[in-house]
Amino acid sequence: MNILFVGDVFGSAGRHIVREHLPHVLETNAVDLLVINGENAAGGFGITPSIAEELFDLGAHVITTGNHIWDKKEIFEYMAVPEDSHSRNRRIIRPANYAVGTPGFGVYEGELGNGQSYAVLNLQGRVFMSSCDDPFRKADEIISKLTAKVILLDLHAETTSEKVAMGWYLDGRVTAVLGTHTHIPTADERVLPGGTAYQTDVGMSGPYDSVIGVEKELVLGRFLTGMPGKFEAAKGNPKMCAALIACDGATGQAQSIQRIMLGE
Amino acid sequence: MNILFVGDVFGSAGRHIVREHLPHVLETNAVDLLVINGENAAGGFGITPSIAEELFDLGAHVITTGNHIWDKKEIFEYMAVPEDSHSRNRRIIRPANYAVGTPGFGVYEGELGNGQSYAVLNLQGRVFMSSCDDPFRKADEIISKLTAKVILLDLHAETTSEKVAMGWYLDGRVTAVLGTHTHIPTADERVLPGGTAYQTDVGMSGPYDSVIGVEKELVLGRFLTGMPGKFEAAKGNPKMCAALIACDGATGQAQSIQRIMLGE
Amino acid sequence: MNILFVGDVFGSAGRHIVREHLPHVLETNAVDLLVINGENAAGGFGITPSIAEELFDLGAHVITTGNHIWDKKEIFEYMAVPEDSHSRNRRIIRPANYAVGTPGFGVYEGELGNGQSYAVLNLQGRVFMSSCDDPFRKADEIISKLTAKVILLDLHAETTSEKVAMGWYLDGRVTAVLGTHTHIPTADERVLPGGTAYQTDVGMSGPYDSVIGVEKELVLGRFLTGMPGKFEAAKGNPKMCAALIACDGATGQAQSIQRIMLGE
Amino acid sequence: MNILFVGDVFGSAGRHIVREHLPHVLETNAVDLLVINGENAAGGFGITPSIAEELFDLGAHVITTGNHIWDKKEIFEYMAVPEDSHSRNRRIIRPANYAVGTPGFGVYEGELGNGQSYAVLNLQGRVFMSSCDDPFRKADEIISKLTAKVILLDLHAETTSEKVAMGWYLDGRVTAVLGTHTHIPTADERVLPGGTAYQTDVGMSGPYDSVIGVEKELVLGRFLTGMPGKFEAAKGNPKMCAALIACDGATGQAQSIQRIMLGE
Ligand SMILES: [Fe+2]
Ligand SMILES: [Fe+2]
Ligand SMILES: [Fe+2]
Ligand SMILES: [Fe+2]
Ligand SMILES: [Fe+2]
Ligand SMILES: [Fe+2]
Ligand SMILES: [Fe+2]
Ligand SMILES: [Fe+2]
Repeated sequence: MNILFVGDVFGSAGRHIVREHLPHVLETNAVDLLVINGENAAGGFGITPSIAEELFDLGAHVITTGNHIWDKKEIFEYMAVPEDSHSRNRRIIRPANYAVGTPGFGVYEGELGNGQSYAVLNLQGRVFMSSCDDPFRKADEIISKLTAKVILLDLHAETTSEKVAMGWYLDGRVTAVLGTHTHIPTADERVLPGGTAYQTDVGMSGPYDSVIGVEKELVLGRFLTGMPGKFEAAKGNPKMCAALIACDGATGQAQSIQRIMLGE
Repeated sequence: MNILFVGDVFGSAGRHIVREHLPHVLETNAVDLLVINGENAAGGFGITPSIAEELFDLGAHVITTGNHIWDKKEIFEYMAVPEDSHSRNRRIIRPANYAVGTPGFGVYEGELGNGQSYAVLNLQGRVFMSSCDDPFRKADEIISKLTAKVILLDLHAETTSEKVAMGWYLDGRVTAVLGTHTHIPTADERVLPGGTAYQTDVGMSGPYDSVIGVEKELVLGRFLTGMPGKFEAAKGNPKMCAALIACDGATGQAQSIQRIMLGE
Repeated sequence: MNILFVGDVFGSAGRHIVREHLPHVLETNAVDLLVINGENAAGGFGITPSIAEELFDLGAHVITTGNHIWDKKEIFEYMAVPEDSHSRNRRIIRPANYAVGTPGFGVYEGELGNGQSYAVLNLQGRVFMSSCDDPFRKADEIISKLTAKVILLDLHAETTSEKVAMGWYLDGRVTAVLGTHTHIPTADERVLPGGTAYQTDVGMSGPYDSVIGVEKELVLGRFLTGMPGKFEAAKGNPKMCAALIACDGATGQAQSIQRIMLGE
Repeated sequence: MNILFVGDVFGSAGRHIVREHLPHVLETNAVDLLVINGENAAGGFGITPSIAEELFDLGAHVITTGNHIWDKKEIFEYMAVPEDSHSRNRRIIRPANYAVGTPGFGVYEGELGNGQSYAVLNLQGRVFMSSCDDPFRKADEIISKLTAKVILLDLHAETTSEKVAMGWYLDGRVTAVLGTHTHIPTADERVLPGGTAYQTDVGMSGPYDSVIGVEKELVLGRFLTGMPGKFEAAKGNPKMCAALIACDGATGQAQSIQRIMLGE
């Protein structure tokens, strides 16, 4: 069974490059399950219902997110569906370790057309990020309740230490631990000894002639002066970054992980 | 002209793997200038004079460091030499944007045996790190005084945004901007349009069956309980991570950058 | 009913000044319940079993702590007692929102000699502090299980905003919300409209010719150079800082709060 | 000579309470120099030219600010005046350790009607705040160039440690070191041994039935859910917080400092 996970889609440049490459990547690699991180899909900040629909139209089974999920308020209502729904609205998730009562859900468990069950879990790190619940214990709690064997975790976190630690913590218990949020892909993809595919950060799918997606002059201005100013999504040099995982559908054990970076 | 930069050497496992690979990497690639980040060379925390000598014995022209530089106090005196010295003691540097009066220096300008001049600069980021002076303006100040055209910057920083921003800021003004500190190599190496070789993080040269160098059980214990406990350097799965840069010695312009990760 | 809460006792200077003033303060004010924050009682960093005994000898019914609780390892075993114990070992508590499985407990419910029941709760803030569980929801969870009406909360936190927010959140549900950790007393003590006594920080009981307890030259050195160095407890100008609360023992409603600062 | 320093004026409630109390406080205490921190004067976030004029109309000789200074963009142009100007536009200052090239100035040196010279300096702390230049060395640099003996520093900082450290660092070199930013007054005002009046935080002049100025429900919602939402200035229970300093105009030595908190 093949899983494709696409890293943080950033703005229109990110959506365009993903739309350009997805069809052939999905076909060439016989991808069964497609998961896309969409927290920056709307101009770099959040995601709207129509952009979520756009990503689902591209074939996403599940959309994961992260700290930017609430940037566009329209998404609150879109995500307000019953927990047992399988609609698109239920298949966009936010970090599971957000406060109780936050809109939406942090895990989705479903079934592919061929009857293969799977789960996608989203968690957020705590180091150098806003306070949220313990991602390690939340992972334990959620995984213990899942019946699917194929489990993919999008860990949205800042530091390498917290992501690497989670990889070891869940090794053998989930199919893949994939990092997002830093917007730069890491070159440490591997299958850990227990059978979990791991990559510290999958990298952004967006414009790389930028500072992690934003027009570079605007970010440099901020670093040099500390003064406020609107951040605009850049356009130049778009690349789609993703991870392709092969696993045993019956056991959920990963067999391989491959890093993908595709430009124009 | 070929430059090899070796990422954060971590503990004895890191020193061993570097010692094992350096000779053939240096020879195969006709490396002219060798720079090693040694901030974690002594058991993962700091560097001692004898370990610095060990890295110089391996052929390092310059040793760069970062936030762990003061972990071993013996290094203070070792670094106390006149600014115009060219001894080994002068060729281990710490971030240039540390406070005035801090031991040591943040830039070294020298000459290879063949008369080729070069400079190595070390800076530290400010986002999610201890306070230090502005690395952008410190870069301007130092670069304006250098006569060497071949200039390598080791930017020791936490966030991708600050490192990427510095790459664009110095593009065309230095030969390479290479990130360190996160201990995980990034897959974004490239020559920027102005001729500066760039990689967000070169990655650690150390044990990868660990949490960024440290025994994984110890770090997981910290994440799970918040309780103190001594961190010990791990040993398993050592890899040497480095960046190989080809540049024009006359202009300092980078021609190529290649990511290197070598295991046992 | 009168409650005295003594702020972070810092090192030997703090213990001396508290020992000097407590007897007459307790007597003059007919104090029924004495609670002392002891996280810095041992040389400024942590607390040992013998120093805990010293504070209990002074009449403390309960000792609260904070982020420095684990600085001295001897305290781990001292705090390892059954939850339903009423021994001194059970009456030293650490923040209740630390990870499950951490030594000790975060709340103590007991009875005074006259049969008056009371509870003391300890929580830690999350802003600019190490990650821990949500203090607001943890407060809800614990308070809902208490039978005592007289409830005192020591909120060990960095920012004024998190402390003030907790005061409003618990107003009318606890007798007092008293802040600790910043080591400087605030002048905002008052009884909130719902009947909860509140003070953002009670202040340290320790040497005020210092930087929040530590020898000022050592802290200034750190600020000026960023270099490491051992922090030593200062001695000069000791003051005992405390809050005196009068409340209705039957309802737990606070009637008054008075700030106390007593020097030599 | 008498100096009155008014802490962070917050929104319209803060401006009203200051307007109500200032005339009699100025007169009763024969205040010679009036300095007001205005960073939150416009609805809690920033300051506009017309609100700056309003504070000058109340008698302010100098307006200091802090991290909120750029929240209202109209103030950029207002502050764009020559360094040697003595107009009102020149007498609103921002932290002096902001990046070179930032609008405005960080120190103002002037003369009262009676010929008494004075200087007002504004600095920002670095711990848990945005990166800026070293406030300790910036203080040295600026103070060494001043001719005035009467020097007041508004240190806008988060932590007690950084503020207390600055007090000791400048003791005997300036008339007063007064903290702002936490919006809660501290009860540690005193004249340090070298003759510098000191208070860790003067406290906000604004609505105290709030979370540091903002409507408490809005802040509690943020703490409880992590979700975004507009922050609105509160109105209830306004108080003016200030520090009154008596000093020798010839030497600049402080003789006394008195904490002031005046409600409706
Ligand atoms: Fe993102
Ligand atoms: Fe993110
Ligand atoms: Fe390192
Ligand atoms: Fe480092
Ligand atoms: Fe403390
Ligand atoms: Fe503390
Ligand atoms: Fe303020
Ligand atoms: Fe502020």
